[in-house]
Amino acid sequence: MTPYYAVIFTSLRKGNHPEYNRMAQLMENLAQQQPGYKHHESAREEIGITVSYWDSLEAISQWKQQLDHQMAQRLGKSDWYEWYHVRICKVEREYSFGK
Amino acid sequence: MTPYYAVIFTSLRKGNHPEYNRMAQLMENLAQQQPGYKHHESAREEIGITVSYWDSLEAISQWKQQLDHQMAQRLGKSDWYEWYHVRICKVEREYSFGK
Repeated sequence: MTPYYAVIFTSLRKGNHPEYNRMAQLMENLAQQQPGYKHHESAREEIGITVSYWDSLEAISQWKQQLDHQMAQRLGKSDWYEWYHVRICKVEREYSFGK
Repeated sequence: MTPYYAVIFTSLRKGNHPEYNRMAQLMENLAQQQPGYKHHESAREEIGITVSYWDSLEAISQWKQQLDHQMAQRLGKSDWYEWYHVRICKVEREYSFGK
């Protein structure tokens, strides 16, 4: 039910770090345990787009500050991403077809 | 500069229609000519995620009603997509790394 919040994370990876997939899976599991987490969707082709959905801005802020997630953010900057862009959005309306 | 607007379009395609890519390219070109269009980003793996960015809700509404786009929306329902989900969002904050 709107309104709720979306974090659009777009990124370009650099190289292929073996620990990336394990850390991505770990972060996914941790995010799911955060208060206010709803769900997320992800696809990567030339660039990667991950959108996570949250109940509130406060839930997003808490996830940003979670300690393991902060470590992943540091590794993201030093090792994994050429660039990334984070957009915090309020979902105002939505509609769907076929589900 | 925030605030601006994002349309998150997530979808699952059905089959592989030969005219899909041509129509997708045509819609991309048409969207770029719409008033208020900023840019878009796209990736498809299991599901597809396309996020387009707009100056205002009015610009999004005009694009939804554009005639060629309406035809594409009908074909999307009849031929191309198992399901899709559209979320209209206000981008409230953003930050980036490395670009």
